[in-house]
Amino acid sequence: MATPTLATRMKVEAEIHESAWPAGFRFAAGHCGLKRKSPDLLLVTAPEPASCAAVFTTNRLQAPPVRLSRAHLAAAGGRMRALVVNSGNANCSTGPEGMRAALATARAAAKLAGCRPEQVLVCSTGVIGRRLPVEKILAALPQWARRDDGPAAAAQAILTTDTCAKLAAASFHDGGKTYRIAGFAKGSGMIHPNMATMLAFVFTDAPLTPAAAAKALRAAVEESFHRITVDGDTSTNDTAALFASGAGKLSAQGRQRFQAGLRQVAQALARQIVVDGEGATHFVTVKVEGARTAADADLAARTIAHSPLVKTALAGADANWGRVLAAAGRSGARFDPERAQIWFAGVPVYRRGRAIDFDEAEAKRRLELPEVEVRIHLGAGRAQAWMWTCDLTEGYIRINGSYRT
Amino acid sequence: MATPTLATRMKVEAEIHESAWPAGFRFAAGHCGLKRKSPDLLLVTAPEPASCAAVFTTNRLQAPPVRLSRAHLAAAGGRMRALVVNSGNANCSTGPEGMRAALATARAAAKLAGCRPEQVLVCSTGVIGRRLPVEKILAALPQWARRDDGPAAAAQAILTTDTCAKLAAASFHDGGKTYRIAGFAKGSGMIHPNMATMLAFVFTDAPLTPAAAAKALRAAVEESFHRITVDGDTSTNDTAALFASGAGKLSAQGRQRFQAGLRQVAQALARQIVVDGEGATHFVTVKVEGARTAADADLAARTIAHSPLVKTALAGADANWGRVLAAAGRSGARFDPERAQIWFAGVPVYRRGRAIDFDEAEAKRRLELPEVEVRIHLGAGRAQAWMWTCDLTEGYIRINGSYRT
Repeated sequence: MATPTLATRMKVEAEIHESAWPAGFRFAAGHCGLKRKSPDLLLVTAPEPASCAAVFTTNRLQAPPVRLSRAHLAAAGGRMRALVVNSGNANCSTGPEGMRAALATARAAAKLAGCRPEQVLVCSTGVIGRRLPVEKILAALPQWARRDDGPAAAAQAILTTDTCAKLAAASFHDGGKTYRIAGFAKGSGMIHPNMATMLAFVFTDAPLTPAAAAKALRAAVEESFHRITVDGDTSTNDTAALFASGAGKLSAQGRQRFQAGLRQVAQALARQIVVDGEGATHFVTVKVEGARTAADADLAARTIAHSPLVKTALAGADANWGRVLAAAGRSGARFDPERAQIWFAGVPVYRRGRAIDFDEAEAKRRLELPEVEVRIHLGAGRAQAWMWTCDLTEGYIRINGSYRT
Repeated sequence: MATPTLATRMKVEAEIHESAWPAGFRFAAGHCGLKRKSPDLLLVTAPEPASCAAVFTTNRLQAPPVRLSRAHLAAAGGRMRALVVNSGNANCSTGPEGMRAALATARAAAKLAGCRPEQVLVCSTGVIGRRLPVEKILAALPQWARRDDGPAAAAQAILTTDTCAKLAAASFHDGGKTYRIAGFAKGSGMIHPNMATMLAFVFTDAPLTPAAAAKALRAAVEESFHRITVDGDTSTNDTAALFASGAGKLSAQGRQRFQAGLRQVAQALARQIVVDGEGATHFVTVKVEGARTAADADLAARTIAHSPLVKTALAGADANWGRVLAAAGRSGARFDPERAQIWFAGVPVYRRGRAIDFDEAEAKRRLELPEVEVRIHLGAGRAQAWMWTCDLTEGYIRINGSYRT
């Protein structure tokens, strides 16, 4: 296709200067044979145990690496030494052999890092239902003891159908020191032939206890990865993890600055995932205001952001407020449509029970920009919520409707 | 497009012999000017009050005709004399003027039928947010006092983006008499420029009290219109109504036979709506078995039937069980994926935690037929549920993504 992708149009930040990366982590990334040619294996090691926290998929179907990583985190008390990620195969629905493969991977990485297997986090992404040829991982890893490929190569090795790497960084000061927070992610676009996964890994040299890392990560995820949707389908392997290598203690203000930096990095990664959504031509912020409760606001925002009718209208740069109002109406949020108001890209289109005469040409011009906002005020209270999503295009259908080969 | 539509491929029954229609109803249908040329107005009258029940949309945004009809049904104790339906304009989000337009329509029909306005049901379908030019309806109706165009013309007059009329009939015997049940419907496909509506009207000459009609309709809707989805978006105007003109009393067995006949008609209409779904190339039955509870079965069936990933896979005739399992996994239904089984068009593809080696060519051949079944056994109990849906194709996006003109 000659059409530039949304990622190109929005100039997604894909390079982070080396100096923005926190010390205390080594990134080895390369090809082990799960994919035909592209990088497909990542090993991250920390010379000292890093405080680690992770948030995993809530899908009832959880791949063996997710179940194993959850157990390892608990067993190691959140003090981890290594992370292994393979792309090209999700190691999901692979029977008892799948768990043996994940365990073997953790053991191989532990040997290399000189730690216990439970100090290793394992993630997989790619095809589900096909045996993971773990022997390829086990053959490659022992050669990687001294490799240092850097974070940019690491960000590449975890991709599947993503059209570009996703990286973000932030820094903050505390007690005369500069701390760094940086990470990379891959998208939740659904791969050929099966679904893929959202993976996000954030590293920092700030000092955090495992409990503080868990609390900070949960808060950041709530405002980033939990607020994005491409097609409403959640994966079996979704994982977001935070690794903190620093020693010492942050001040109260430092902890706040860290939280702000972590949110910034997580939001930047989450945005990049949506921008790289399959077939996407618009990055969309859905804002719900004036809801009775936070739960109502959330319900309405999620229902609007998932509505195929809203998403196809946005693909057509159509200020179709009827679809937004109908989606809010069936969401379960309590409100009176007669008191609601709707804006498309800042243009008021509906107020208190009826359409507003608006400049359709101006609305269309604004809705043709790569980033647009749909805002609804429910007129029922003061609670708010937002979601990031993309439009639904023929490109999405083409990518996901083709037969597995 | 040269490709035959799914409706053509599945030879949807679009003609019902006149003799299959119950006595006691007169159908006047024609053009009043809401659409450019096609029929857009229907008036059904009963010389004697008919027992009537209706099920309306659960969307919080309810069009004035829905709110008015609900009030009228209650006020008339379910004994109705007329039904007016206009297509081409949903009379929704039209401010206080919208309710005045619906009321004026009811009054005009009441005058013609010689009844009270509250004995008239009013339905509208079409564009939302645009003023209903009710003067066109009010100018046409008085000319229609003696018109009798028959049910086939009636079925045509309520259509919007539907590619074909939807009709169905059944009959049963009780106490030496033959009773008829017949009806028509229009689809929930979303119209240009705004969303449309599912409308279904069923008529019978069987004797029923309003309460019996309400109970029978609720049960039939539960197994028909509540089990279909095209894109998960519900409309502001959805209405299913039953009119019973008969006098006397059914036997206990007769009531059972009526219920079976009503279900048959409602299911036939519901199927036709899905078959005529926008862009549809496959009619899909999603069956969930082995759930812990009926609610769990329902959750899983709806989530699978709404999943864009499942629906795009079916468009590509792809036995993509990973997407089905992942949709069930995030549905909230309680089950262990290690005990689940999945079939595509009768071909077993997944059992107890892993893929089954299946004949992909044979599966693809079966999935290319116009009607396919996706079945999952959750292995968690004995409850079941099903949904009818269609696949998600580029055609759907084309139809719904085009800009309003």
